[in-house]
Amino acid sequence: MSERLVVIGGDAAGMSAASQARRLRPDPADLRIVVFEQGPVTSYAACGLPYVVGGEVDEFDRLVVRTPEEFAERDIEAFVRHEVTGVDTAARTVTVTGLDRGDERTESYDHLLIATGSVTLRPPVPGLDADGVHELRTIPDGRALDAAAGRARRAVVVGGGYIGLEVAEQLRRRGLGVTLVEGADQPMTTLDPDMASHVTDALERLGVEVRLGHQVERIDVDDGAARAVVTAEGWFPADLIVLGMGVRPAAGLAEAAGVPLGDAGGIVVDERQRTTVPGVWAAGDCVESHHRVSGRSVVVALGTHANKQGRVAGTNLGGGDATFDGVLGTAITRVGDLEVARTGLNEAEAADAGFDHVSATAAATSRAGYFPGAEDAVVKLVAERSSGRLLGGQVVGGDGAGKRIDTIATALWTSMSVRDLAGVDLSYAPPFSPVWDPVLLAAGRTVGALDG
Amino acid sequence: MSERLVVIGGDAAGMSAASQARRLRPDPADLRIVVFEQGPVTSYAACGLPYVVGGEVDEFDRLVVRTPEEFAERDIEAFVRHEVTGVDTAARTVTVTGLDRGDERTESYDHLLIATGSVTLRPPVPGLDADGVHELRTIPDGRALDAAAGRARRAVVVGGGYIGLEVAEQLRRRGLGVTLVEGADQPMTTLDPDMASHVTDALERLGVEVRLGHQVERIDVDDGAARAVVTAEGWFPADLIVLGMGVRPAAGLAEAAGVPLGDAGGIVVDERQRTTVPGVWAAGDCVESHHRVSGRSVVVALGTHANKQGRVAGTNLGGGDATFDGVLGTAITRVGDLEVARTGLNEAEAADAGFDHVSATAAATSRAGYFPGAEDAVVKLVAERSSGRLLGGQVVGGDGAGKRIDTIATALWTSMSVRDLAGVDLSYAPPFSPVWDPVLLAAGRTVGALDG
Repeated sequence: MSERLVVIGGDAAGMSAASQARRLRPDPADLRIVVFEQGPVTSYAACGLPYVVGGEVDEFDRLVVRTPEEFAERDIEAFVRHEVTGVDTAARTVTVTGLDRGDERTESYDHLLIATGSVTLRPPVPGLDADGVHELRTIPDGRALDAAAGRARRAVVVGGGYIGLEVAEQLRRRGLGVTLVEGADQPMTTLDPDMASHVTDALERLGVEVRLGHQVERIDVDDGAARAVVTAEGWFPADLIVLGMGVRPAAGLAEAAGVPLGDAGGIVVDERQRTTVPGVWAAGDCVESHHRVSGRSVVVALGTHANKQGRVAGTNLGGGDATFDGVLGTAITRVGDLEVARTGLNEAEAADAGFDHVSATAAATSRAGYFPGAEDAVVKLVAERSSGRLLGGQVVGGDGAGKRIDTIATALWTSMSVRDLAGVDLSYAPPFSPVWDPVLLAAGRTVGALDG
Repeated sequence: MSERLVVIGGDAAGMSAASQARRLRPDPADLRIVVFEQGPVTSYAACGLPYVVGGEVDEFDRLVVRTPEEFAERDIEAFVRHEVTGVDTAARTVTVTGLDRGDERTESYDHLLIATGSVTLRPPVPGLDADGVHELRTIPDGRALDAAAGRARRAVVVGGGYIGLEVAEQLRRRGLGVTLVEGADQPMTTLDPDMASHVTDALERLGVEVRLGHQVERIDVDDGAARAVVTAEGWFPADLIVLGMGVRPAAGLAEAAGVPLGDAGGIVVDERQRTTVPGVWAAGDCVESHHRVSGRSVVVALGTHANKQGRVAGTNLGGGDATFDGVLGTAITRVGDLEVARTGLNEAEAADAGFDHVSATAAATSRAGYFPGAEDAVVKLVAERSSGRLLGGQVVGGDGAGKRIDTIATALWTSMSVRDLAGVDLSYAPPFSPVWDPVLLAAGRTVGALDG
């Protein structure tokens, strides 16, 4: 009997699932796979958008991993500019609107994968719909921002999340004056304040004006166009404004269909990516994931999870058996000359999750101190006081510092103690590391903090 | 009662132990610490020597971490150019010769730490003692090689171990013609042949003539000076020759004193760095270590272990309790534009250790494929067939590839399976990684190999 898989959302999670299901069930007469994507392209690398806007990556097309035509060769029917407006989970149908012709149709499914991604967080302030206020989540967003940046001299980025910082960096790269307005007392609130201060410094070295603790009150609009960002403390003129506060799950369609959401606003799935509704699966930015350290259900919008979860869903839909084993909240970015990364729980998160914790920081170098190109590498670790269990880590520094977070993430994945981490046989040679790698040094210091 | 710690060898292991013991027992009236070092300096970074010879690091003095005067300020009496020629473990004395004045004296100890390091492997061929045949293990070796390189046009490096490769690279950097003569069919025999072939290519891109499978038969000597390296297959003229086959433990003094050695030729110690002789401890290149994957006792001469073992010995000598928890054989180096790293067991080693294994290789990129500066990153993993347990990994590639070995080493340290490794929440952003980090990709492929 032929079955039919409908996928809503043709980006990382959706297309990974479709591809993996097809790999395991290669016969389209056995499993038909239909994907509806409301945007104009499938399977693109959204994380690369800031770098095309800034010109560091040369064109938006470079971000497209695979086109609908390429998917068609794999017997995956992907329809772009097709919006799914409703799901009937009892009848197992979706309602689809073709955005170009405005035609609406109903398609049935045996299995439905919801991979609707995320939407940009928008502060609840007047003026946000004016011309000149940009998001940066899709390739059309990127093209619009790119065009606007070509006409602009001054930009204000609202929010110091990852995209906000990357956009600030890249707009400076294009020569615009850039002000970053952030409500918190630090950029990148996933870091502890001491580590985030390095990010502020890096932004200022780039020439970004950083305004912390500024709550946006409104956007000043003149003749339909945004002219300034207004906070209690100041008035920041702008030819263009970019929202960089982060994203939230695009879970409205699922919610309307009666698919349960969790406290973090994402679709609730089990470790096989099944929702609680029969026949309905979900993956990517729109779902909640298990945080392996805090034990909580969290939303982390990141391509790496979307790919893994899509693959897990596709394996299970294809008749295999796979699980997504959770997240650590690992993240990395670059702010000018600074590499910044984090994983697990920072101090505030550890306290919030009920851990009595200690922390320690090692300021070392990325290579042997005497070796050309040695740059700062600052590693901070957080550990549970009673057990010494590693809870999280943060890294800032120059070239070669950031990816050290993966060592910490791997230790965290297996609930390693900092005592164990301090002994790991990490690689050493002068072009790559001091004889005590900064991670080992930080682990040793954290052991010292545990021992008082 | 005042006690006396005598340390033989004033480099990484010896000085780490001395420093740590002093940290825990700060009063010199409680613990006197005396170090004898036969060379002219204490505590130097031997791994940096090739880079000074090549001019990448500007002077040898940069490699000296701490001088005897600086140790004196910490109440550590370090005597350079003092050779310990005998140990009487019953009387708890050492016999010391001052190399400058030729005076011999006897010093008593309560605790003895043997940290005599390693000696260069020398092939058993005629001509090896001629002028122009160099080792590169100490700063005097480095100065001699540096001076000789200034007068030379053609060099032959005998042996493609880490030092051999680094010297070949650095002598090319100085403009010398360089031939590498290696007895095995590949350079860097700690890699599998398929991965080592990338090293051969990198050497050839540097302009090094690579001669594999060449057993050295003799050194041609003319008027006391080496003129050529002779193998069955060829005659390789040289103004200077460097031995780059590796090192072996300098354990002769310990052996003569009745301190037991192991099958690998190093001093046998327990996890607290105690030998089987009362009052005698040992650390660094001269000892054998527990290999956590093979379970065997191995010799790995590397500054990172020397530092850790010295610290462990010093902690225990200082009244604390510390253990050295073994090695994985992690190593990293750079050969021209290639970063090369390995950890755990390669395929041959896995077979030799009795593991039925599978392996898989992923050829990916160090950054997102579309991002400027993305370079090759090839990761190979070896896993136990029955359990999926990770046994080892190898990495070759461009900038940013090599240090990924630390992720694999950390997974190996906790006996992680490749199935688990494939799911780890590693960091992702376009300047740092493809959305599937090469390590995850290789782990996924290895799972595929396990599943047939």
